Amino acid sequence: MKIAVLGTGTVGRALAGRLAELGHAVSVGTRDVAGTMARTEPNGMGNPPYAAWAAEHTNVTLATFADAAAAAELIVNATSGNVSIEVLTAAGADNVAGKVLVDISNPLDFSKGFPPTLFVEDSDSLGEQIQAAFPDLKVVKALNTMTAAVMVNPKAVAGGDHSAFVSGNDAEAKAAVVALLESFGHTDVIDLGDISTARGPEMYLQLWLRLMRALSTPMFNIKVVR
Amino acid sequence: MKIAVLGTGTVGRALAGRLAELGHAVSVGTRDVAGTMARTEPNGMGNPPYAAWAAEHTNVTLATFADAAAAAELIVNATSGNVSIEVLTAAGADNVAGKVLVDISNPLDFSKGFPPTLFVEDSDSLGEQIQAAFPDLKVVKALNTMTAAVMVNPKAVAGGDHSAFVSGNDAEAKAAVVALLESFGHTDVIDLGDISTARGPEMYLQLWLRLMRALSTPMFNIKVVR
Repeated sequence: MKIAVLGTGTVGRALAGRLAELGHAVSVGTRDVAGTMARTEPNGMGNPPYAAWAAEHTNVTLATFADAAAAAELIVNATSGNVSIEVLTAAGADNVAGKVLVDISNPLDFSKGFPPTLFVEDSDSLGEQIQAAFPDLKVVKALNTMTAAVMVNPKAVAGGDHSAFVSGNDAEAKAAVVALLESFGHTDVIDLGDISTARGPEMYLQLWLRLMRALSTPMFNIKVVR
Repeated sequence: MKIAVLGTGTVGRALAGRLAELGHAVSVGTRDVAGTMARTEPNGMGNPPYAAWAAEHTNVTLATFADAAAAAELIVNATSGNVSIEVLTAAGADNVAGKVLVDISNPLDFSKGFPPTLFVEDSDSLGEQIQAAFPDLKVVKALNTMTAAVMVNPKAVAGGDHSAFVSGNDAEAKAAVVALLESFGHTDVIDLGDISTARGPEMYLQLWLRLMRALSTPMFNIKVVR
């Protein structure tokens, strides 16, 4: 499948690398292609510059948000939550219309320090805000409840015996995303319901953040035991 | 141990019954003892009246919030979140001072329908509000992440192979609550940190509510797989 991954950070790289490994034609979208390739310093999170990653992933192309989205059949939103709508606007409503968006973003607000708060809560969610801003996009919230390395390689934690979630209004889009998650190795993907149910996994982040601190590692996930 | 369980609803009854079964001297606290015993109709949740439950649990006594708290070494807050501080005020700051409070309450606001929203979020929690209102109480948030039947009998779901959490400022109080949870059958109780970490399990409720609907049962829990 032709897939656009919007975002060049840890999550975007993890998704792009894994999708390419699985045989998809992957294009990573960025604001400024030349600028992204020109950076030589690690970013704020201490990740090596994108060009270093790209040199080891020559099967992944880099394009503008608009070019990546226009060519794609499925789009992954791997941008920071606070710029997601801006990035999709830059990608172009026409370029994303009718396509499936795997929305991994979290509405994290780091302005008050760590742990971050959420800038959307409870009576709304970032998934819903994206769906409302782009009515022709088929938004499926997924994978925002775990660290990037677990998203794309669930077997890295307890052999993959844990759960993932999907929320979205379009049944076919959700089925496509469930299939994608299963191709990563996820074995228990729970359909929570329409896009309003994204409030659940987004607010769960506040437990995830405390667990990461208590366990001193992001390499964990939850299994819904029933 | 002498234990007061504040609240006569599903959660209060489940805790009181289980604690008595384990040999503790349990007193259930209520606003109006005569009124609670006089009711003959099921409550709003369809539960049988308290008197019917009490007739089958003759080893559990019923007392005013103040009398129950005064006699107790450990107190369980099993009231609705929206009345928890009012109930503890009725119990009396002097009667609760220095004691451990197992705070099971959730800050649920049903005024906008179902699923409920939370009336405290993210930059605060109900656990912290209770701790701030009663500085001499040793508040330990626990068990609010599962349905009452699972709180007291974790083996009812997958043989008990799932997780519980504690948050609180006092290490000894947390250790006492962990021991109590283990006596119920919990095998993986994770210490999230101080009482501010109660924001995590309280906000998780929004995922729990969606899972209950998706799974069509409250008989589930999460296991933190690592």
